[in-house]
Amino acid sequence: MGSMFEKRQPEVGSRPGTLAIPPGSPAPRISVIRYDLNNVEEFELSDISQLSALRTPGHVVWVDVQGFGDEPTLRAIGAAFELHPLALEDAINLPQRAKTELYQQHQLIITRAPMLADDGDVTAPQVCFIVGDGYLLSFQDRYFGFFDKVRDRIRDGLGQLRKTGADYLAYALIDTMIDNYYPVVQHLAELLEELEDFAISSPHPVVLARIHHIRRQLVRLRRIGWPQREAIHAMLREETEFVHSGTMLYLRDTHGHIAQIVEQVDACRDMAADLAEAYLSNVSHRTNEIMKVLTLMASVFIPLTFIAGIYGMNFEHMPELKNPNGYFFALGSMGILGLAMAIYFYLRGWIGTPPPPDLGTTTIRTPTGDSK
Amino acid sequence: MGSMFEKRQPEVGSRPGTLAIPPGSPAPRISVIRYDLNNVEEFELSDISQLSALRTPGHVVWVDVQGFGDEPTLRAIGAAFELHPLALEDAINLPQRAKTELYQQHQLIITRAPMLADDGDVTAPQVCFIVGDGYLLSFQDRYFGFFDKVRDRIRDGLGQLRKTGADYLAYALIDTMIDNYYPVVQHLAELLEELEDFAISSPHPVVLARIHHIRRQLVRLRRIGWPQREAIHAMLREETEFVHSGTMLYLRDTHGHIAQIVEQVDACRDMAADLAEAYLSNVSHRTNEIMKVLTLMASVFIPLTFIAGIYGMNFEHMPELKNPNGYFFALGSMGILGLAMAIYFYLRGWIGTPPPPDLGTTTIRTPTGDSK
Amino acid sequence: MGSMFEKRQPEVGSRPGTLAIPPGSPAPRISVIRYDLNNVEEFELSDISQLSALRTPGHVVWVDVQGFGDEPTLRAIGAAFELHPLALEDAINLPQRAKTELYQQHQLIITRAPMLADDGDVTAPQVCFIVGDGYLLSFQDRYFGFFDKVRDRIRDGLGQLRKTGADYLAYALIDTMIDNYYPVVQHLAELLEELEDFAISSPHPVVLARIHHIRRQLVRLRRIGWPQREAIHAMLREETEFVHSGTMLYLRDTHGHIAQIVEQVDACRDMAADLAEAYLSNVSHRTNEIMKVLTLMASVFIPLTFIAGIYGMNFEHMPELKNPNGYFFALGSMGILGLAMAIYFYLRGWIGTPPPPDLGTTTIRTPTGDSK
Amino acid sequence: MGSMFEKRQPEVGSRPGTLAIPPGSPAPRISVIRYDLNNVEEFELSDISQLSALRTPGHVVWVDVQGFGDEPTLRAIGAAFELHPLALEDAINLPQRAKTELYQQHQLIITRAPMLADDGDVTAPQVCFIVGDGYLLSFQDRYFGFFDKVRDRIRDGLGQLRKTGADYLAYALIDTMIDNYYPVVQHLAELLEELEDFAISSPHPVVLARIHHIRRQLVRLRRIGWPQREAIHAMLREETEFVHSGTMLYLRDTHGHIAQIVEQVDACRDMAADLAEAYLSNVSHRTNEIMKVLTLMASVFIPLTFIAGIYGMNFEHMPELKNPNGYFFALGSMGILGLAMAIYFYLRGWIGTPPPPDLGTTTIRTPTGDSK
Amino acid sequence: MGSMFEKRQPEVGSRPGTLAIPPGSPAPRISVIRYDLNNVEEFELSDISQLSALRTPGHVVWVDVQGFGDEPTLRAIGAAFELHPLALEDAINLPQRAKTELYQQHQLIITRAPMLADDGDVTAPQVCFIVGDGYLLSFQDRYFGFFDKVRDRIRDGLGQLRKTGADYLAYALIDTMIDNYYPVVQHLAELLEELEDFAISSPHPVVLARIHHIRRQLVRLRRIGWPQREAIHAMLREETEFVHSGTMLYLRDTHGHIAQIVEQVDACRDMAADLAEAYLSNVSHRTNEIMKVLTLMASVFIPLTFIAGIYGMNFEHMPELKNPNGYFFALGSMGILGLAMAIYFYLRGWIGTPPPPDLGTTTIRTPTGDSK
Repeated sequence: MGSMFEKRQPEVGSRPGTLAIPPGSPAPRISVIRYDLNNVEEFELSDISQLSALRTPGHVVWVDVQGFGDEPTLRAIGAAFELHPLALEDAINLPQRAKTELYQQHQLIITRAPMLADDGDVTAPQVCFIVGDGYLLSFQDRYFGFFDKVRDRIRDGLGQLRKTGADYLAYALIDTMIDNYYPVVQHLAELLEELEDFAISSPHPVVLARIHHIRRQLVRLRRIGWPQREAIHAMLREETEFVHSGTMLYLRDTHGHIAQIVEQVDACRDMAADLAEAYLSNVSHRTNEIMKVLTLMASVFIPLTFIAGIYGMNFEHMPELKNPNGYFFALGSMGILGLAMAIYFYLRGWIGTPPPPDLGTTTIRTPTGDSK
Repeated sequence: MGSMFEKRQPEVGSRPGTLAIPPGSPAPRISVIRYDLNNVEEFELSDISQLSALRTPGHVVWVDVQGFGDEPTLRAIGAAFELHPLALEDAINLPQRAKTELYQQHQLIITRAPMLADDGDVTAPQVCFIVGDGYLLSFQDRYFGFFDKVRDRIRDGLGQLRKTGADYLAYALIDTMIDNYYPVVQHLAELLEELEDFAISSPHPVVLARIHHIRRQLVRLRRIGWPQREAIHAMLREETEFVHSGTMLYLRDTHGHIAQIVEQVDACRDMAADLAEAYLSNVSHRTNEIMKVLTLMASVFIPLTFIAGIYGMNFEHMPELKNPNGYFFALGSMGILGLAMAIYFYLRGWIGTPPPPDLGTTTIRTPTGDSK
Repeated sequence: MGSMFEKRQPEVGSRPGTLAIPPGSPAPRISVIRYDLNNVEEFELSDISQLSALRTPGHVVWVDVQGFGDEPTLRAIGAAFELHPLALEDAINLPQRAKTELYQQHQLIITRAPMLADDGDVTAPQVCFIVGDGYLLSFQDRYFGFFDKVRDRIRDGLGQLRKTGADYLAYALIDTMIDNYYPVVQHLAELLEELEDFAISSPHPVVLARIHHIRRQLVRLRRIGWPQREAIHAMLREETEFVHSGTMLYLRDTHGHIAQIVEQVDACRDMAADLAEAYLSNVSHRTNEIMKVLTLMASVFIPLTFIAGIYGMNFEHMPELKNPNGYFFALGSMGILGLAMAIYFYLRGWIGTPPPPDLGTTTIRTPTGDSK
Repeated sequence: MGSMFEKRQPEVGSRPGTLAIPPGSPAPRISVIRYDLNNVEEFELSDISQLSALRTPGHVVWVDVQGFGDEPTLRAIGAAFELHPLALEDAINLPQRAKTELYQQHQLIITRAPMLADDGDVTAPQVCFIVGDGYLLSFQDRYFGFFDKVRDRIRDGLGQLRKTGADYLAYALIDTMIDNYYPVVQHLAELLEELEDFAISSPHPVVLARIHHIRRQLVRLRRIGWPQREAIHAMLREETEFVHSGTMLYLRDTHGHIAQIVEQVDACRDMAADLAEAYLSNVSHRTNEIMKVLTLMASVFIPLTFIAGIYGMNFEHMPELKNPNGYFFALGSMGILGLAMAIYFYLRGWIGTPPPPDLGTTTIRTPTGDSK
Repeated sequence: MGSMFEKRQPEVGSRPGTLAIPPGSPAPRISVIRYDLNNVEEFELSDISQLSALRTPGHVVWVDVQGFGDEPTLRAIGAAFELHPLALEDAINLPQRAKTELYQQHQLIITRAPMLADDGDVTAPQVCFIVGDGYLLSFQDRYFGFFDKVRDRIRDGLGQLRKTGADYLAYALIDTMIDNYYPVVQHLAELLEELEDFAISSPHPVVLARIHHIRRQLVRLRRIGWPQREAIHAMLREETEFVHSGTMLYLRDTHGHIAQIVEQVDACRDMAADLAEAYLSNVSHRTNEIMKVLTLMASVFIPLTFIAGIYGMNFEHMPELKNPNGYFFALGSMGILGLAMAIYFYLRGWIGTPPPPDLGTTTIRTPTGDSK
């Protein structure tokens, strides 16, 4: 997934509701869990004619569609649950921005869970949830395994999950999706911290390239996370027929998580910008040091070489040349001149790296004024 | 269309409703489609006196005006459909910002579809829609061919198009207009990705110029797309007499598309800024390398040349010159001095490009914490 | 008008309603037009005692005050139309931000029309409108001639102007004021486009100074235009006693114009920033080229000069000097060394400007995916 | 007042309502003016037991507290006017952000008037107003003399001041406070304009330091002015028991002033940023010029010196040396080589500052399109 | 706490309400204060079975939980006060963003008080408050001692604290938490002011690193403070069953404090950015000075050395060499040439640092226009 933009939209001008099956997506595997407070039933649906029999009053049925490789099956699911054509289109055509849409019969919620690919790029598989009266559909274009822990929680029957409706299940799955942000942000933050040392000790261009690469991932992460936050915020704004106020309380918690994540991503971007700046100022400091010392050396020797050049001239009448001590006088005056210049340069602070100033008084100390 | 601003507005202080025909716009060609659930009638209107007979109860009539080259015809259309003078002005005078205006008898929607001209500049032909009770007018200053697919969908009669009113047709056309953003953004994003290699391997000023050019196109694209998003958002805020709630649902989908596009454009702009920065830091790294190596070489030779200069002096009394091994001593001490300086420079890390640091531990890896 | 801030406010702590007559403003010339659907009466008022007789039921009277040089006259106008002291203060004390204020008896609208002075600075003469029941006052501190076209439109009696009230006249004048933005923005945009060539071909500091100057004008333009947009937006938010809903529709059009203008100004500012950046990177590229080539030349000759220095030493015993071919060997080895270094530098890509990379594959082309 | 943050807050964890008397604040001087339409009474209150007798129905009493040096007096004032403990705390503890707070018995308004200290730093003495039924309290930690003009206006009895209540007096004082912004902004703007010349003609670091200093003052000014604008905006949002609608109209005017001021501050900041940039690009242009010319000179002489070095070698067999015209040939070829290089450099545009390009065609001219 | 992100969240996909005990947190110490207007009872609770007996009508009971090292105890507290599972989770799992959540039985408020660790990093221990009917719970993961002063105020019985309910106690504690921001911001501001001198007098990289470090702390501080401000703002928006309008007034004061703090942090960040820029421009000025002076010196001597090289050539026929005064002529012409070049360089302003321009007229002076 090298490219940043991979919109596989249907052709321009095509009918709304057109399904654009992602190439390479496997044939749908339809995994069903049906439960109430007392029983859990779990099976894989192979005969799509049984779809319409799935919904049973008093039960919650969760249909997890893994793989989009067969359009008729998808259309059959849409028909069985009376999905709006746009809802089915949004579920299948990826990638979408995270969002929520309320239809007459159901509510659609698109979420994306970021992951780091092997090449370090952030990818964000999309899972679309459609929650209706007594059922929850989830659509993933291949099996990602995000939901195994939630399945365990359904099976063991502890906690709220079995006691409440399809909307709480939707919450539990959305929350699981969003939990995937934490390790990614954490990992990128750690990388930045490791790169900090390199930026100061070994300012090689690959370090800068790495910083830029991480920054690009952070931008991508924010682009994915921000609509997610907006979508959950939109869900919180008003209770719908499909998401009840009891579940709202939990969604508010999820909203807090995604808000925190977006903030952390922004903080990481600040850090990355800081790092790039530190890198550049470090590089420039090093170059300056080299140029400075060497220019100074050249400056000392150039006048001396000029003096040597004078006494290398072949004029017949050059009185100093006859002087038996002329040579030593010349050497001495060159030495004195060179020394004087070195001292002058030293006094102006141009020679050598000055020792770091004593920042002792500026050491950050815990202020004594706070009540500990 | 080299210039960025091509407002061909009427003269300052002129009467509102003045039509400023774009120079070079061909004479209007009026293409009409009239349909209901069962029939489709398609013809070209040459006699403008027939305009008033077009509207038939129970039918949807779509009048597509291609070319603005004849003001009386335009005024006749305005009269036949009782258009507000400002509405007609907005339809003809281009370019406008995308917007929607509600008049008593009809609603006006201005859209612009971006295209890439042959010189790589983004242009954005304007199409203005006026949707009223049972009719839809569309105005384009010349034939762009955006709507051929929609015409086919009207003809084949599948889907919603024939079952619903003029507002759904308006939606279908607006959606088609907005679909034109995708290939443009995509193409600019691909160009940026191609330029990334050049910025790193061949940092020539033409690469930077190209980056700046693309950036300018992106700015232009955003300037066109943002009002479009606002306009569709405004349409969603309240149902009007002319756009019904059934169509709203579809427009919401279109709103999602244009919002996604604006975000992608912003992401591309971030990418372009990054690229320009990478280019500059690469150029500066290269120059630094050259300056550094060569300055070092000069630094080594300058003191040596000075020594040679000393022994080139013509003093009569220079004891070393008489020494039979003086020459070899001099050569040797020069060699040792040069070597010592080279070693010193090497130890301070000033000679040669250091090998890239081993970032092995910072390789971005998929964090193990996420549930795969 | 060299200074950016020319607030000629009354003294600190002075009574509200104090009039600060701009120095040099000529004595007021009061030009009156009174019209209804059938008649137009036009005259210049010299006797201020006639002011109170101007308002006639069934007529619209427009009093255009040109010049503020006589406070009693201004106060008499205020008294005749029962102006609130703050309204009169706002009309006379300039410059103000564009704004609208609703008083009990009238509504005040301040507008500013940008112009380019001869030195290229943007100035923005202020015109204040006060619209009340059946009358419109306009205040300009000297005659600017903005409204001649509107006067013609009143005289010829075509269009809406004679059929509607003072609020439509106010709209027509505000619209005329705002039309003045277009040529200024256009002109600045053209200047930027012309400067683009200079920035690339002749990067002389005067070019940068010019860019900065234009940028400053754009900032000024935005500072003037933004409150204008806000003011018109505020007028659109609610119908008042003085501006009726029929006129609102036209004002919305004007709002669209000023919004478009502000956007164009922003786009121009982006362009100017781009241009300044291009200038700087061009300058730095040129300097780099010079430094690079010349440093390289120096680097080649420094070691060669050192060799010449060695054989210029006056040691008595230097075997090479006796060798009859020593001179030619020395010349030859210098040549080979010089050539080797030149080749080495060339191979590292340090000599000569590399030809621009072939960006052929990145030429921006019209994507084939869009429906043309 | 060298430090930017001088919060002299009470100790952490202390009781709300604690008064933190600013060190060095003189003992309170309580200056009272009591007036109605016909009479003005003015006296200094020394016996704090008389405080409770001050409020008289039908009169407006203005108690101006100058100096906070005695806590019991302040508490007595608080008791006499039944001030909420938090209100008294806000009045005494400084500095606060400008704000307004509505209490049951009175409304508190904190304002700050910027001044320039002798060292050029912006300071902003705080004055807190508490307006209640028939009285106005003002608190200043020492005598600033802001209000002398308003006192004169009360005494002369002209205008609105004597006819209206305590809220109009509060408006008059707040307006006076805010008028103090104008000379400060004006002065900083003038300084920036003067520095513009220095930045271009004498780019010495002290100029940059001065620019940065002014920028810091502008940031400070904005930090003070923005909450002021917010506070007045909050007062305008709803009529309270203490500030009546008649006064609102005047406050709206004040709001316009502070909004204009904040905009001017922002414009000044833009100007300062521009100036700093112009300074830096000017410095870099100068350095470039020096480096360029001198590097070129060095480049011309280095090869020539090399040739001289060759003929300074002491080989026994160097045919040219015997040639009677060898010396002149050598001189001539050096001259030709030097000249050729100079010409080459000149042709590549590397020697000398090129004359400024003829920007004649880009001179900003008044566009001819506007109606003058 | 070296890392910026220390989210110790429960495992991905785990049940909401899971408690993630921070490693190393001591066993809970439960410190209880129960008071009414007349009595204060203070004790440490060791037997968790007594928890349910703590709530007594007519009393306020404050349960301060210090240390999270034992989950059953925490769960027992949750059960005794009927805490919502999410509330308990938010109280224990740290760090959280500051926020407030309203549950049916109680309101939760999360606050964080910044402190400076010994290494100068900002840390922000979290304290969670849960205020219900007649009780207040506070949760801190170890004993921080923030609340000792408030305990004293409860004991001495002065002021509001004993007269009002649990919500006022909550306010008092929140206010105490927020007071901790002041010394931290103050200290960082002082550090920046101290660094200003170093940035100008000793621009060593450690100074820049220090500036960057402080900037990072400021970013962190803002990230902590901003949600705090939002949370208190949310509490002010509507009265709840648990926080009454009497306390609102005090909370508004606290809101003012945190708003002021956030502004000061922003101002500090501006200052830090300024400082970094000043540092860089200072470094570049110094390097420029060195390069300039030395390049000039080299430029003077290079042509002179060339002349010396000419007369060092060994041509047999060089007329000047025979001239008895040739040597002195050569020396003289070298001296004149050197002098001429030095004068030329001086006149072009290239030699020596020019004296700082006389900015006398731009000295910031108190404008005479303001009324002092």
